[in-house]
Amino acid sequence: MQVEGLSINLATIREQCGFAEAVDICLKHGITAIAPWRDQVAAIGLGEAGRIVRANGLKLTGLCRGGFFPAPDASGREKAIDDNRRAVDEAAELGADCLVLVAGGLPGGSKNIDAARRMVVEGIAAVLPHARAAGVPLAIEPLHPMYAADRACVNTLGQALDICETLGPGVGVAIDVYHVWWDPDLANQIARAGKMKAILAHHICDWLVPTKDMLTDRGMMGDGVIDLKGIRRRIEAAGFHGAQEVEIFSADNWWKRPADEVIATCVERYRNCC
Amino acid sequence: MQVEGLSINLATIREQCGFAEAVDICLKHGITAIAPWRDQVAAIGLGEAGRIVRANGLKLTGLCRGGFFPAPDASGREKAIDDNRRAVDEAAELGADCLVLVAGGLPGGSKNIDAARRMVVEGIAAVLPHARAAGVPLAIEPLHPMYAADRACVNTLGQALDICETLGPGVGVAIDVYHVWWDPDLANQIARAGKMKAILAHHICDWLVPTKDMLTDRGMMGDGVIDLKGIRRRIEAAGFHGAQEVEIFSADNWWKRPADEVIATCVERYRNCC
Repeated sequence: MQVEGLSINLATIREQCGFAEAVDICLKHGITAIAPWRDQVAAIGLGEAGRIVRANGLKLTGLCRGGFFPAPDASGREKAIDDNRRAVDEAAELGADCLVLVAGGLPGGSKNIDAARRMVVEGIAAVLPHARAAGVPLAIEPLHPMYAADRACVNTLGQALDICETLGPGVGVAIDVYHVWWDPDLANQIARAGKMKAILAHHICDWLVPTKDMLTDRGMMGDGVIDLKGIRRRIEAAGFHGAQEVEIFSADNWWKRPADEVIATCVERYRNCC
Repeated sequence: MQVEGLSINLATIREQCGFAEAVDICLKHGITAIAPWRDQVAAIGLGEAGRIVRANGLKLTGLCRGGFFPAPDASGREKAIDDNRRAVDEAAELGADCLVLVAGGLPGGSKNIDAARRMVVEGIAAVLPHARAAGVPLAIEPLHPMYAADRACVNTLGQALDICETLGPGVGVAIDVYHVWWDPDLANQIARAGKMKAILAHHICDWLVPTKDMLTDRGMMGDGVIDLKGIRRRIEAAGFHGAQEVEIFSADNWWKRPADEVIATCVERYRNCC
């Protein structure tokens, strides 16, 4: 029985299995939408990954990830842009709905977050013609402000949408509830994103209390404090009806359980908590 | 030799010493402005703390802290309001420049952050007449979004200023660089706060990369990525010329060093990095 509207970001079971086995487990549970990471694709080979995707009629709700644009010097920034162009090609080859972009943080010892933010806009602008030509939408994923220094200096949905407005067609946003749930302006910005037709992906998990690790202690839907149903309703009201993509980094819990159990739990929680 | 413009929040050496000893160390280093916590005051007694403050001509840049308004039921919320009124009285007795308010997070298991935010506004509104009568300004301190669930659902300077506008005179903001440095709208909101004459306190420390603990791994000024001088310039341009108040929670580093060394380092970094 197919599970409509649910996608599994393969990072959710990255410690347990590679691309092919992850796909098998998703299919077993009736899930036909996934979002792989580039290293998972590279491990099996882009050609073989594409073959598996097409053979099974899989939908790719995104490829993770491009981005990480800021660098201390021009050659570092150019290198990042080149890598993003390759990521676009991989997304095109796999037929992914979008390439997810994690902006990158402050380059080597910098305290100038405004400069880092300019590097992000310039980097996306440089990749954009190639992405448009390849037909791959770029999805800027605002990350939680606790990652501003080391992972992403795009930290609110409003900021990401400002960048979309600056750059024009071909750029949108990935809305991950983990990163944006706290934002007092969230409802307004989701509505704005809808008007801009900029919503490309909707990622789900939960915020645990307490959160024991800033990176790898995300919760399964229903185990935390995020109003998942409320945010989903707002995203749907804004006109996005794509799959909800489960992305859980959980070093001490879900990554230690059998992948089959993790995916079964995703399905159950998706049905009851999202 | 007096160190002008520097205040020490006594949480910075809370593991090493109590109120009286902390004051002695500050005075030894030429610091005549402090911000104590209520538990530190209670430990020595409000009367004795006030005597020490007056005998030494100390300036109190704030009393930490009131707030924590959301609760699952009305009696819990009323209890919080009563406690805040007592905190106002203590701030008045000590002659503190303001009572710092940490809003509080989601009450017991709630996923409704909008409701929690309404409880915060209602709680401050209920305390405000008493605070105005006592001449104690209430300083809403927006906390970093990583504390939205369990400590404070007021998470941006803009949100705090919205509350100030709603409630009118007697309410302002405490700007702690640790909580707001990442905000893409920070410059605008500092300027707005200046126009509102709402800036009541300016707290400093630094954001370490990596940050190993979400609560107790704050850095000494200069050891992290925050543009302290840039933010100070904006706050001064907005018309606030009060002391910069050092507030560092550091379980594995500064709380383990001799208080004298910590305060000497605060002075040196204040002179060179702020």
